[in-house]
Amino acid sequence: MLNYEDFEEKTLSRKEIFQGKIIDVAVDDVRLPDGSTAKRELVFHPGAVAIITITDQDKMIMVKQFRKPLEKVILEIPAGKIDPGEQDVPIETARRELEEETGYQAETFEHVTSMYVSPGFANELLHIFYAETLTKIENPLPQDEDEVLELYELTLEEAKQEIKNGLICDAKTLFAVQYWELMMLNKKSKEV
Amino acid sequence: MLNYEDFEEKTLSRKEIFQGKIIDVAVDDVRLPDGSTAKRELVFHPGAVAIITITDQDKMIMVKQFRKPLEKVILEIPAGKIDPGEQDVPIETARRELEEETGYQAETFEHVTSMYVSPGFANELLHIFYAETLTKIENPLPQDEDEVLELYELTLEEAKQEIKNGLICDAKTLFAVQYWELMMLNKKSKEV
Repeated sequence: MLNYEDFEEKTLSRKEIFQGKIIDVAVDDVRLPDGSTAKRELVFHPGAVAIITITDQDKMIMVKQFRKPLEKVILEIPAGKIDPGEQDVPIETARRELEEETGYQAETFEHVTSMYVSPGFANELLHIFYAETLTKIENPLPQDEDEVLELYELTLEEAKQEIKNGLICDAKTLFAVQYWELMMLNKKSKEV
Repeated sequence: MLNYEDFEEKTLSRKEIFQGKIIDVAVDDVRLPDGSTAKRELVFHPGAVAIITITDQDKMIMVKQFRKPLEKVILEIPAGKIDPGEQDVPIETARRELEEETGYQAETFEHVTSMYVSPGFANELLHIFYAETLTKIENPLPQDEDEVLELYELTLEEAKQEIKNGLICDAKTLFAVQYWELMMLNKKSKEV
């Protein structure tokens, strides 16, 4: 079994390429364990949250939106990036994003998992929460000004169909639908 | 229900920020559906593949490696980015990466799903394959020169433990373990 030293890539120097509103980009020169050097292209991101939530009618709440990097409209679970001041409390981001994007508040937010979305080049960590006991509220937090969202509620069968149709096609939402299916199967197997 | 025009963000201009070996970065000025403008920070990536594969001993094959953006060592299913010439045949990338990273060849590669890993800023599409009927080969394709990998084989229980330990912590591998669990439960429920 290898030790940490056998894997570690030591930073020799960093070239800052870009500092944006959402991402920063840098290129590191690194020393590999065998003594040779290599370059690493890196994207730094503040992290994000996503919310799995199922209504009383056994439907998952999703939002349809245009994604510029893909140049298309896709269907996703509610999500958003962590704002300054929320770094240590991603549950607050989850609470805020659920209300902003869907107009719902939830009584409980359970942490499901946290995932690095693309560890080869990006440090983005996505926290997934499972929100329960929803209330539709009268005057929710306003949506982000530069976002157009359309709300959907899908049964598990409808969600699986939208995966086939290609409208559900991102990592967090594919994970969420699978999580839901697993939850249903576990429930059923306990009833048997 | 909204139409495509109600969502579309039209590109007004693009500023190229960086052209790397793996990623390109740009900032677009876009016209939103309500006529206002906004900026979009974009990372372009050639896409990648990941391989879910279970040995005859019911163990999932994983690799341990250092990830510079995270500054740590994590445990992942075998994966790699699509090389030039492989764009239309990600299954070839899967075949190559499985052999390079693990020394295994597989008889069949079934497409499981393709997922955008972070559609808010990146266009990276990750294709996940399920590879079956493994053969360990004598002289496999060499590993990438700048990669140090250590091979692991984990039972489902071990994988779930490594999720708790935080060593398994990336989207594709969390998806893969959940996929495996779902597969096992489905098999069991058919036997009942």
